[in-house]
Amino acid sequence: MDMELSGTKNFLRHINNPHLAPIQRIQSTLLHEMQSFAREQGFVQLMPIMMSPFTDPLNHDVYPAEIQYRTVPLKLTASMIFHKQLALIRQDIDRIFIVSPNIRLEKPENKTSKNHLLEFSQFDIEMRDAGMEDVMVFLESLLVEVFRRLESSVTEELSILGRSLPRLKAPFPRYSSDDLRERYGEDFYRLISEQTTVPCFVTNFKREFYDREDPERPGTYRNFDLIYPQGYGEALSGAEREYLYDDILRRMKELGMNLEAYANYLDVARQGLLPRTAGAGIGIQRLVKFICGKQNIAEVCLFDRSVASDFVF
Amino acid sequence: MDMELSGTKNFLRHINNPHLAPIQRIQSTLLHEMQSFAREQGFVQLMPIMMSPFTDPLNHDVYPAEIQYRTVPLKLTASMIFHKQLALIRQDIDRIFIVSPNIRLEKPENKTSKNHLLEFSQFDIEMRDAGMEDVMVFLESLLVEVFRRLESSVTEELSILGRSLPRLKAPFPRYSSDDLRERYGEDFYRLISEQTTVPCFVTNFKREFYDREDPERPGTYRNFDLIYPQGYGEALSGAEREYLYDDILRRMKELGMNLEAYANYLDVARQGLLPRTAGAGIGIQRLVKFICGKQNIAEVCLFDRSVASDFVF
Repeated sequence: MDMELSGTKNFLRHINNPHLAPIQRIQSTLLHEMQSFAREQGFVQLMPIMMSPFTDPLNHDVYPAEIQYRTVPLKLTASMIFHKQLALIRQDIDRIFIVSPNIRLEKPENKTSKNHLLEFSQFDIEMRDAGMEDVMVFLESLLVEVFRRLESSVTEELSILGRSLPRLKAPFPRYSSDDLRERYGEDFYRLISEQTTVPCFVTNFKREFYDREDPERPGTYRNFDLIYPQGYGEALSGAEREYLYDDILRRMKELGMNLEAYANYLDVARQGLLPRTAGAGIGIQRLVKFICGKQNIAEVCLFDRSVASDFVF
Repeated sequence: MDMELSGTKNFLRHINNPHLAPIQRIQSTLLHEMQSFAREQGFVQLMPIMMSPFTDPLNHDVYPAEIQYRTVPLKLTASMIFHKQLALIRQDIDRIFIVSPNIRLEKPENKTSKNHLLEFSQFDIEMRDAGMEDVMVFLESLLVEVFRRLESSVTEELSILGRSLPRLKAPFPRYSSDDLRERYGEDFYRLISEQTTVPCFVTNFKREFYDREDPERPGTYRNFDLIYPQGYGEALSGAEREYLYDDILRRMKELGMNLEAYANYLDVARQGLLPRTAGAGIGIQRLVKFICGKQNIAEVCLFDRSVASDFVF
């Protein structure tokens, strides 16, 4: 029982932290402003799903998160990337967003990370017949407008936290990862975040098969990250998607992926039914951490789901 | 491959159903109106969590949905009931809501159910220092106002579906389950839903330990369901909560529960820290089904998660 007692003590200390209420209020208002802005721009909100025969393979290694329903093995949602594509098969819905819980059972090497959670929520968007530039422009206007609205709607909460929101201005600078790597070395990501005073886009990462390889410039990828300034690190990832059967197959084979697990998805692609889309997923807790000026993402969660969590509740 | 092909054929037929887009648009607007109304009433939106050492034991038997993170066994969220209570330990947040995905791996006996999903989302609310009547009044005003707003905001979508929204009026009738059982027999629940033309509350069910037993009238429970008219069945459950250590312990023992699994929760209760709350969880897909006038809940889901689902995606 001693361990539990010390666990609840830690939990009670955390939940009674005076900053936690203003942070939750800011998060609540943020969710309202993001959803409202997306609706104003014609986005339709879809419901999240949490389990499916397949999910995002991710670009980094995590422990599997799987259950079984009767005889069906199901993966817990790492992201809704494929389901966003499939939802846009319909021609009469163009733009979607989902407040989507993601489960990513990080390996212990991320135990000291102040930017990773074992479960978090994404503000996940996807647009039909759009390119990466369309998505970047939407994200810029979303963040600029949401920050502007927050300044007047959560003034008191920000002041309790001693935080002045940076005034954002579109367009955000855009860099290519090649240029940055050449200039700053492999650690460019951290360096850029620490040195910049405005959010900036970094384009062209070789990663998951579903981020589109530029057909004009093989080896170049039509994807991007947004990086927060002041050392807050990664904000979001986005991309144009591979949607042509031959391209998907080639990319999956390059990465040595198990095609069988994607049989139904490939079947839809082979019929030429996957829509041309682009999208992104904004980590909500990371955005809250940035808005609230907190160093550790665990500080913005009511229930600690950081990699070092003791899972009291 | 044949099974997959027939699976994707079914999926493509489903997703191209002309009613699916208006249903998704209605659901999107509904989410906006529900969240906006709750905010107007002073509710703060919290983030969902999907895994925890403990979750709602539920009142009916489902297959376990569990994973393990390193050495920690975690249950997938069946409902956020306990986390709602714990969130309200803080004295400066009074009313919360969460759009909360729930996973409930129903047994095959529910395979023909047109009202059950293996995963769905709740609009989950909890209020501090509130009684069941406060929650019922809030739910009435929420539904009356949201239906009123929907009538003008999704007129076209409702007309495509050939659906006239019932005009709701508060208060909804309130019945006691004892009276209904006496009058209609054990099947009263289905009969009431089929015979009534307005939503109605039914109170007093003996079920999970956390629904408060009336201290003045032992054997009577301060909980309720809301039943949709026109045969649409259960809308939501709500209750005052047990929050006193001795009461919780007595109720758990009555039900022969494993106390060890609730050690941390009981530790907080023993310190007298659990707040006095009441709340409810509105099944979003069931509400969409009622609003859209659909017979089968699978018809309102982009990705079929009914108990009979073939899990193509």
